[in-house]
Amino acid sequence: MLGTASAMPVPDRNPSAQALSVHGRYFLVDCGEGAQRSMVRFGVPLQRIDSVFITHVHGDHVYGLDGFLSTLAMGGRQAPLDIYGPRNLGPMLKFFLSYNEWIGFELRFHPLEMKAPEVIMETKSLQVLALPLKHGVDTYGYIFREKEPQWNVEKEAVEKYALTLTEIGSLKRGEDVVRPDGTVIPNAEVAYKPFAPRSYAYISDTAPFPEEASWLKGVDVLYHEATFLSEYEEQALKRLHTTTLQAAQLALEAGVGKLIIAHYSSRNTDPDVYQAECRTLFPETYAARDGDVFEISRN
Amino acid sequence: MLGTASAMPVPDRNPSAQALSVHGRYFLVDCGEGAQRSMVRFGVPLQRIDSVFITHVHGDHVYGLDGFLSTLAMGGRQAPLDIYGPRNLGPMLKFFLSYNEWIGFELRFHPLEMKAPEVIMETKSLQVLALPLKHGVDTYGYIFREKEPQWNVEKEAVEKYALTLTEIGSLKRGEDVVRPDGTVIPNAEVAYKPFAPRSYAYISDTAPFPEEASWLKGVDVLYHEATFLSEYEEQALKRLHTTTLQAAQLALEAGVGKLIIAHYSSRNTDPDVYQAECRTLFPETYAARDGDVFEISRN
Repeated sequence: MLGTASAMPVPDRNPSAQALSVHGRYFLVDCGEGAQRSMVRFGVPLQRIDSVFITHVHGDHVYGLDGFLSTLAMGGRQAPLDIYGPRNLGPMLKFFLSYNEWIGFELRFHPLEMKAPEVIMETKSLQVLALPLKHGVDTYGYIFREKEPQWNVEKEAVEKYALTLTEIGSLKRGEDVVRPDGTVIPNAEVAYKPFAPRSYAYISDTAPFPEEASWLKGVDVLYHEATFLSEYEEQALKRLHTTTLQAAQLALEAGVGKLIIAHYSSRNTDPDVYQAECRTLFPETYAARDGDVFEISRN
Repeated sequence: MLGTASAMPVPDRNPSAQALSVHGRYFLVDCGEGAQRSMVRFGVPLQRIDSVFITHVHGDHVYGLDGFLSTLAMGGRQAPLDIYGPRNLGPMLKFFLSYNEWIGFELRFHPLEMKAPEVIMETKSLQVLALPLKHGVDTYGYIFREKEPQWNVEKEAVEKYALTLTEIGSLKRGEDVVRPDGTVIPNAEVAYKPFAPRSYAYISDTAPFPEEASWLKGVDVLYHEATFLSEYEEQALKRLHTTTLQAAQLALEAGVGKLIIAHYSSRNTDPDVYQAECRTLFPETYAARDGDVFEISRN
């Protein structure tokens, strides 16, 4: 958690930014002012970040980008950097590059435009989806989803059936083994999934919207903005934000494992108060502070 | 001292920014990333800043500007803001305004271009001068100079000579009193200056240059970058920065009252080490940390 505040500056926290480490890779999600200093402070290997995901162009989510990109370049970066974000982030990056011709690495911008969740990036073991949110400007949330792992074959079964390498290969792909003599060794009997794929969603900033719970169905950990305490519901609606109770209600409906909240209004800066309100509906709520680390463990 | 680091991000301090309070007005000098959060943290009344002085467009001196300007606007600012800086700051401000049409106050940019110190701003009691520095890009330092105060008239003299209001007025302007009968009351006998005008210079970033000591002659407090320890003199020269000993030598030659240093290289982040080196030449050196407050008292 590199930054857990909302737009107005506060003494104890930076505006929105998170680092996400998945299978040895590092992603940056949003990049509010001061994100690079938080990375150094909290031990995130800045140069190893290969992809940046920006939700929208409000300053408290992007004004750390120029400094971050400059620092990468000053550090001698050669590797390209992928940046995903709404179309209107383009001019900002273009201006930055025109103003800083010395930047020595490729900046690959992937403008987003979609009406429902879509896969925007894919690796051997991970899918990243973007989904449209409901805010004053073009805004996207992100879901990071591990792919289904290969099947593992039980050690005992290898001996019991004297499985060949070819047969083990078939089982790992989820197939049954059918031998020339007609014997069938069912996948379900000898193979198992070593872990359930994990998922993390990053949703900020947005007012609640009808499809939200179904789009976020079953994610293990949901980060969701909870800018306002419930008594400011009217204010939240007007400014297209979410209240504590609305975030908790969503977590409940979507059946997520854990809810992390932040992006607290500068009017009430004590995360515990936000957390307490959420927990009345959804006990597995955690109000984040700058520097907090959450691990999504395999089960 | 809102930020005392140089370009590479470090855990404990922000990049360059200072707030200066003069006769009830607030100025911002440089605006590195995170300056607005430092202002909130250290109790600088952000909305009361009416003028910003930028030395040059390197990121560690300007990347806090977008966030600062946005926060002023979000706070409902109506009053215009004056920004002084090199000509190439213009496109950055222009892009910011084109991208943020909702900004509700006037931003008055004063581009600088000069070969020697010049007055760029003047009030009843204060003069601000800009002077060209020697850095990779167009860079200016600033001197804030109180004007000479009016003369005060000794209370005893008012009675002794039965001075009229008109005569007191003349004395306050520094004139002698010449009465119709030819009596002369010399200004020097009955009037005095209540305080010596104070001055503060902000010099960052620069390599040493020949005119520097004469241009900074006699300022009460000199803030000067001292990016490198003396062992890195070659590096400093190459990157157009100043070492500790060079800054101290300058303070000595210019005959300043006090030297404040900062803008420490990320290679050595302990201000005490920089301070110790400077003090071998110039004992009145103070290595600044974020949040430090220096007062220039009247004498």
